[in-house]
Amino acid sequence: MRFIVATVCLLFFSCNESIISSRNKSDIPFSIVIHGGAGTILKENMTNELEKAYLNKLEEAIRVGYSLLENGASSQEAVEKSINIMEDSPLFNAGKGAVLNSNSEVELDASFMNGKTLDAGAISGASSIKNPISAAIAVMENSPHVMLSGKGADTFAAIQGLDSVPNSYFITERRLNALKKVKKYKTAYFFKNGLYENLNQLYGTVGCVALDKEGNISAGTSTGGMTNKKWNRIGDAPIIGAGTYANNKSCGVSATGWGEFFIRSVAAHDIANLVEYKKISIKDAARIVIHEKIAVLGGSGGVIAIDSKGNVAMEMNTKGMYRAHMDSKGNFSVKIYSDD
Amino acid sequence: MRFIVATVCLLFFSCNESIISSRNKSDIPFSIVIHGGAGTILKENMTNELEKAYLNKLEEAIRVGYSLLENGASSQEAVEKSINIMEDSPLFNAGKGAVLNSNSEVELDASFMNGKTLDAGAISGASSIKNPISAAIAVMENSPHVMLSGKGADTFAAIQGLDSVPNSYFITERRLNALKKVKKYKTAYFFKNGLYENLNQLYGTVGCVALDKEGNISAGTSTGGMTNKKWNRIGDAPIIGAGTYANNKSCGVSATGWGEFFIRSVAAHDIANLVEYKKISIKDAARIVIHEKIAVLGGSGGVIAIDSKGNVAMEMNTKGMYRAHMDSKGNFSVKIYSDD
Repeated sequence: MRFIVATVCLLFFSCNESIISSRNKSDIPFSIVIHGGAGTILKENMTNELEKAYLNKLEEAIRVGYSLLENGASSQEAVEKSINIMEDSPLFNAGKGAVLNSNSEVELDASFMNGKTLDAGAISGASSIKNPISAAIAVMENSPHVMLSGKGADTFAAIQGLDSVPNSYFITERRLNALKKVKKYKTAYFFKNGLYENLNQLYGTVGCVALDKEGNISAGTSTGGMTNKKWNRIGDAPIIGAGTYANNKSCGVSATGWGEFFIRSVAAHDIANLVEYKKISIKDAARIVIHEKIAVLGGSGGVIAIDSKGNVAMEMNTKGMYRAHMDSKGNFSVKIYSDD
Repeated sequence: MRFIVATVCLLFFSCNESIISSRNKSDIPFSIVIHGGAGTILKENMTNELEKAYLNKLEEAIRVGYSLLENGASSQEAVEKSINIMEDSPLFNAGKGAVLNSNSEVELDASFMNGKTLDAGAISGASSIKNPISAAIAVMENSPHVMLSGKGADTFAAIQGLDSVPNSYFITERRLNALKKVKKYKTAYFFKNGLYENLNQLYGTVGCVALDKEGNISAGTSTGGMTNKKWNRIGDAPIIGAGTYANNKSCGVSATGWGEFFIRSVAAHDIANLVEYKKISIKDAARIVIHEKIAVLGGSGGVIAIDSKGNVAMEMNTKGMYRAHMDSKGNFSVKIYSDD
């Protein structure tokens, strides 16, 4: 008799728990947002074909991540796979097609953060890792460290069995031309606002933030940094707190733009702290950091963010930011210009 | 007549302003705090001679910075010169006497932030810069970037005319022995708590935070990272937001400890945001981050901090932290153990 009661109770509680758990899960709106870089992106400088190529690739990248989330995958997996699509496309400044440093080489930076565990991984100055975001995740999962750099990052990724490619794989005609243009001017271009404004391919990044059905947030960022960068410069993309941050208590953030200003502003973490400590919305937090902090210092760029309730922010102080958003409530958008 | 009135008014307001300004200045308590690393520092493992050597060197370093502040120097200069003293001493894990990586080489990280301008500079993985904190300041002042790494950092520092030394200059018998001990154990030592607790020379950092007579805060951190670090690992010391942060609106912070946890916690910036956004005291903010955040993740270490009113925090979750504090109110302390 005791056995039967126990079995019935067990069945009841199991069913009950699964009903509650499935109800809770369906209450959580899963969501994904990506960016492909911010900058002086003007419609008059864009051909119809190029515009279409960007929109198609952004849609492909966000649909890959969304489909994973829909099928119950973790936000970590969605972030990795969406970013991989953009890294493999020569359109964006990450992986293949990344910008060139002053020695005409590609040096890649990336970071990833898991908002549930606060685990994080990053690589900087890598020269042979095909998909830097996957290497950042491998650093997080399989090394005692959070951040590896230079040859060490390349070696670690190779040991992990990640795809290794010669540096020439990353280099495109378009980025070689951009470097030539910058080099024509003898002084460092970024001290000259006028010049800076005229060159729209100097920086850029790709990034993704996702909230999965379990309510876990992840964020990742991957980039080649800034055209003509020198002395093994590290930008904000591989810096946890600057270019990438995720915390289930507040939000996930990925930034793109003039990295130096995002480092000085600890931009991604500042947005998360405004949400957590000041109890303001993610849209307001992103607006404050991008327009009232970074722009005031003289910096330009944008961010994408998702909070623990699935609310999304896509904020920029530039003329455009390649971006897309998709969620379980049926929202879907792919945009380029700031006034889109 | 109008001219005379105007002149008198001008004289009156000028004097008045200078009285107000000098009154304001004397009201601002200038202050300086340094650390020489946190860890399992136990009295029973320390000789009287070594203890005295640490106390003397800490006192020398803080007196150099204090004296500069007293004579009207900027907090930036005080931070740099105090840290230089500790970098040049083989007692601390920074500059000469830094810990060794898995290849028996020294790789140096440092960062600096100016709380008035929010300017910042950092270097990581340098192998020939005698005084890394001075190179971090040079990156801030004389490069378009915030963070340089590896050979690029070494090259930039040499171009700047900073002292360059062979890597052997940094290497000491004590650190070679510590590396041998760690290497005896085949698995990564930091996964084994028991082992980790028994080795007190695995990490460490030096740092300084100062508030000058103008009310400006600066913070800097310099380190060799962790013994046996691999793959060009970057720790928290050169990461703005993690190991170093300064903002006149809140406070300046320098961290020391198990860097990976300080990166994941964006520790220095979190303390500043708790002060600015939650309006809590610097002591409470440091306590929350060190004991309720970093310790909960499994991390160990400590921080020093000064807020815009000159209040100081020196917080650790380890058995000790080499530290000293001195201010214009007559406070003076040099301490080693957590229960000092």
